[in-house]
Amino acid sequence: MSPHYSLQQLAELVDGRVQGGGGLIIRNLNGIAYAQPGEITFVLDKKQLPLPEHCQASACIVPLDAGPVDRPVLITDQPGVAAAKIHAALLARPFEATGIHPSVVVGDGCTVPEEVSIGPLVCLGNNVSLGQRVTIHPGAVIGDGVTIGDDTIIHANVTVAHGCSIGKRVILHHGAVIGSDGFGFATDRQGRHHKKPQVGTVRIDDDVEIGANSCVDRAAFGVTWIKTGTRIDNLVMVGHNVVVGEHSILVAQVGIAGSTTLGRNVVLGAKTGVAGHLHLDDQVMVAAMSGVHNNQPKGAIVGGAPAFEAKSWGRAAVAFGRLPETIKEVRRLRKEVERLSALIDSPETSKDNK
Amino acid sequence: MSPHYSLQQLAELVDGRVQGGGGLIIRNLNGIAYAQPGEITFVLDKKQLPLPEHCQASACIVPLDAGPVDRPVLITDQPGVAAAKIHAALLARPFEATGIHPSVVVGDGCTVPEEVSIGPLVCLGNNVSLGQRVTIHPGAVIGDGVTIGDDTIIHANVTVAHGCSIGKRVILHHGAVIGSDGFGFATDRQGRHHKKPQVGTVRIDDDVEIGANSCVDRAAFGVTWIKTGTRIDNLVMVGHNVVVGEHSILVAQVGIAGSTTLGRNVVLGAKTGVAGHLHLDDQVMVAAMSGVHNNQPKGAIVGGAPAFEAKSWGRAAVAFGRLPETIKEVRRLRKEVERLSALIDSPETSKDNK
Amino acid sequence: MSPHYSLQQLAELVDGRVQGGGGLIIRNLNGIAYAQPGEITFVLDKKQLPLPEHCQASACIVPLDAGPVDRPVLITDQPGVAAAKIHAALLARPFEATGIHPSVVVGDGCTVPEEVSIGPLVCLGNNVSLGQRVTIHPGAVIGDGVTIGDDTIIHANVTVAHGCSIGKRVILHHGAVIGSDGFGFATDRQGRHHKKPQVGTVRIDDDVEIGANSCVDRAAFGVTWIKTGTRIDNLVMVGHNVVVGEHSILVAQVGIAGSTTLGRNVVLGAKTGVAGHLHLDDQVMVAAMSGVHNNQPKGAIVGGAPAFEAKSWGRAAVAFGRLPETIKEVRRLRKEVERLSALIDSPETSKDNK
Repeated sequence: MSPHYSLQQLAELVDGRVQGGGGLIIRNLNGIAYAQPGEITFVLDKKQLPLPEHCQASACIVPLDAGPVDRPVLITDQPGVAAAKIHAALLARPFEATGIHPSVVVGDGCTVPEEVSIGPLVCLGNNVSLGQRVTIHPGAVIGDGVTIGDDTIIHANVTVAHGCSIGKRVILHHGAVIGSDGFGFATDRQGRHHKKPQVGTVRIDDDVEIGANSCVDRAAFGVTWIKTGTRIDNLVMVGHNVVVGEHSILVAQVGIAGSTTLGRNVVLGAKTGVAGHLHLDDQVMVAAMSGVHNNQPKGAIVGGAPAFEAKSWGRAAVAFGRLPETIKEVRRLRKEVERLSALIDSPETSKDNK
Repeated sequence: MSPHYSLQQLAELVDGRVQGGGGLIIRNLNGIAYAQPGEITFVLDKKQLPLPEHCQASACIVPLDAGPVDRPVLITDQPGVAAAKIHAALLARPFEATGIHPSVVVGDGCTVPEEVSIGPLVCLGNNVSLGQRVTIHPGAVIGDGVTIGDDTIIHANVTVAHGCSIGKRVILHHGAVIGSDGFGFATDRQGRHHKKPQVGTVRIDDDVEIGANSCVDRAAFGVTWIKTGTRIDNLVMVGHNVVVGEHSILVAQVGIAGSTTLGRNVVLGAKTGVAGHLHLDDQVMVAAMSGVHNNQPKGAIVGGAPAFEAKSWGRAAVAFGRLPETIKEVRRLRKEVERLSALIDSPETSKDNK
Repeated sequence: MSPHYSLQQLAELVDGRVQGGGGLIIRNLNGIAYAQPGEITFVLDKKQLPLPEHCQASACIVPLDAGPVDRPVLITDQPGVAAAKIHAALLARPFEATGIHPSVVVGDGCTVPEEVSIGPLVCLGNNVSLGQRVTIHPGAVIGDGVTIGDDTIIHANVTVAHGCSIGKRVILHHGAVIGSDGFGFATDRQGRHHKKPQVGTVRIDDDVEIGANSCVDRAAFGVTWIKTGTRIDNLVMVGHNVVVGEHSILVAQVGIAGSTTLGRNVVLGAKTGVAGHLHLDDQVMVAAMSGVHNNQPKGAIVGGAPAFEAKSWGRAAVAFGRLPETIKEVRRLRKEVERLSALIDSPETSKDNK
C-alpha cells in the first residue's frame, strides 16, 4: 500500500509552488527516462527542459527559472532537495517488525525491543542494546556492548565490533566494518613491531550513512567519531581517533590517517588521502585523488598531492603535460643566451663591461 | 578423478601443433618451477627458453617462434590463451551438487533447482531464483528477488542485494557487495544532505568475474550494468548507473563515479579513478593510478591525473623530477638575460633601439 | 581480574629505570587525556612534557632525556615500545576457551583442540586444522584444508579460502579475505579473457596482522606469502604470488600487483601502488600515494608516481605549483632572447658573427 499525495500536498512538503494540476495524484517519483503516468519526475536545471517527448511523467519538479513546461510542475528553489524529500515521502512505509529470526544468536544481557527486524544468521554479542525499529540484515555481527539507536539499518554482512555506539537513523551498508583495531604499533631497534592495544571505540552519531566495505577503526584511547549527518561512500578508510565533523562527505576510497579531525561540511573527493594528526576546518573541500599533508583553514579548497589551493593546482595539472617541452625550451634558451653572452661579452661588443 | 588428455588432444583443443610425443598423457598444467613429470608447463615468450634444467615438466606450450626445445612441445600463436584453456580443461570436473546445507535459510517463493551446491549459513531472501549448478559458498547473503544464472559461483560472505540479476558462469569473489545503495543525496542550503532513494538495481551479465571486497552500487533509477566477459579485480568501486562494456578489465582498487559508461574492451589500470557522467569508448586504456576527467574516444591510451595521451604523460612523469632544477635554471637565465639586455639596451651598444 | 604490576616490575619488563615510586602499583596504561589514578601514561618525546595539570596518571613512561617530571617515571630509550609492551602486559588475561558454539558448522576431518573459542555462525570446511587457543569470531568462513596456528585470532566475517595456511599469533581483522583468486587471465585476439586457474595458496607466517576488508590473493601456482611480523592495514590489496618480507608495513589502501617481492622491513605508505614483477629490497620506504614502477635497492626511500628518490620528489612536488608561472616566464625569456638576438645579430651590433 504505497502512500500517494496530491501535487499540492507534495509542494507543501517542500515549500514549493504548483503550476497546473495541484489536485493531481502522484504515487511515485522516477527518473525522466523511467517515469510512468501517475509519477513525478524532476530536473535540476532548466537546461534539462523541455522534457523529452517520450517522458510519461505526469508532473515535474523544476527550478524557479524553468519557464513554461508542458505538464503540471512543482516549482522550488532546490529541486534536488525537493526530489529527495518527495521521493522519500512517496516510498515511506510504516515499519513492519519481523522480529528476531529463529537463526539469530543473541548473547546475554541484550536489550531488544519488540519492534525490530533482525534477519537470519545475525549474531548479537552480550549486552547489545537496540533502539526501536532497528533493522539488521542477514549475516551482520554486532559485538559485545554495542548500542544501536532507533530506526537504524544495518545491512548484510556488516560488522560492528565490541563497545561501539551507533546513533539513530544511521545506515551501515553491506560489509562495512565499524570498530576494527587502529593501525598502531611501536617499532623497536631490531625492526620488530609491537602492537599498541587499541582500547577505544567508535561513535557514530545520528543520520550518518557509511558505505559498503568501508572501515572505521576504533580509537587507540577514547573514540573515533563520525558526527551527525555525515555521508561516507564505499571502501573508505577512517583511521583511529579520527573525528569527522557534522554533514561532511567522504567520497569512495578516501582514506584518513589517525588522529586527524575534520570540521563541519568538509568534502573529500574520491580516493583522497589525508595524513595523520591534521585538522581540516569547516567547509574545506578537497579535489578527488588529492593528498592532504597540511592543516587546512575554514573554507579552503585544495587539490593535488601534496594539496594546495585548488585553482592553482588545476592550472599546474593542466600545465604538467607541457613540462618536457618546457625543459627543452629552457635548454635552447641557455644555449642562445650563452651565444649572445659570448658575443656581447667579447671585447669588440662589450669593452666597458666588468 | 582428474581428466587427462594426450598432448595431441590438447593441441586440438587450442588449435595448436605438437612437436614430439603427441601421444604423451598429460594430467595437469603447472608453472615452470612447480611442474612434475606428467604435467605440461608453458612459456609466453621464447626468451623464457630453454627451460631450466630442474624443470620436470613432460611437455611445454610454446610460441610459434620458439625454436627447438628439449622436450615435446605444443606450438601455438597464443601460448597464454592456450595455457588458460588447457589448464581449465585439465581441472574440469563434473558438477557435484551438494544440495542445500541444513543451516541455509531459504525465503518464500524461491526457485532452487535440485542440482545446486549451497553451503552452510547462506541466506536466500524471498523469491530468489537460482539457475542450474549454481554454487553459493558459506555466509553469502542473497537478497529478495535476486536471479542467478546457471553455473555461477558466489564465494563466501558475498552479498547480492535485493532485485539484482546475475548472469551465467559469473564468479563473485569473497566479500564482494552487489547492489549496495548508490551515493546519492541532495544538499540543502543549511548544508544538510537528503538521501536520494536508490531504487534501481544491478545487472551482471554472463562470464563476468568480480573481485574480493569489490562493490557495485545499485542504480538510482534503472540499472548499473556490467556486461559480458568483464573482469573486475579486488576492492574496486563501481558507482550507481555505471555501465561497463563487454570484456573490459578493471584492475584492483579502481573507482568509477556515477553514470559513467565504458565501451567494450576498456582497460583501467590499478587504482585509477574515473569521474562521473563520462564516456570512455571502446578499447580505451588508462594507466594505473590515473584520474580520468574527460570523455575518451575509441582506442585512446591515457595516463596521469587529469589523464592525457599516455606517451606524453609518460614523458612528463619522467621529466617531473627535473622541475626544481628547471625552475632554478629559468631564474639564472632571467638574470643573464637582464644583464645582457641592460648591456645591449645601453646607449653604447644599442643606440638605435627604442 | 586484571593483572597489575609495580612500577619497578614494569621497568624490568622493558629494561627501563624507575625514578620515584618503584613500589607504586599500576593497573592500567592510558593516554594522557584519559589516564586515571593508578594508571600509567607515556610520552614519546620530552616536548610532550610537562604533563598537563589535569592529567591524573600516577606515573609516566618517558624518554632518556626527559629531565625532572612531577610524578614517578619509568625512563627508557624506547618509550613507544615500552608503552606497547607494558599495555599488553597489563591487558593480558589467561585464554578462556568458550569452545565451539552450537551454531558452528564443522566439516569432516577437522582437527580442533579443546582449548579454542569459536563463535556463533562460523563455518569450518573439511580438514581444517586449528592450533591451541585459536579464536574465531562470528560469521568467519574457513575453507577446506586451512591450517591455523596457536593463539591466532580471526575476527568476524573474515574469509580464509581453501588450502591457505595461517601462522601463530596472527590477527585477521574483520572482513579480510585470504585466498581469493588472483587476477589472472589470458586475452585472445577477439579480446575475450580466459581465466587462468589460480591453483596456489596463501601462507601467512607468525605474528602477522592483516587489516579489515584487506585482500590477499592466492597464487596462480605456489604461494602468496606474508612473512613473520608484517603488519597490513585496512583495505590493502596483495596480488597473487606476492611475497612480503618480515616485519614490513603496508599502510591502508596499498596495492601490490602480482609476483612482486618485498624484502624485510619494507614500509609502503598509504595508498601506494606497486607494479607487478618487481623487487623492493630490505628497508625500502615508499611515501604515501606513490606508484612504484621499478625495482628498488636496499634502503631506498622513494616517492611519487613513478616513484624516485624521496627528497628529490619532495622538492619536485613542492615546485609543482610553480609550473604555470615557470612556463610563462620561459615564454617571456624566449621573446626577450629573440629581441636581443635580433639586435646583436644585426649588422650594426654584430658585424663579425657568422
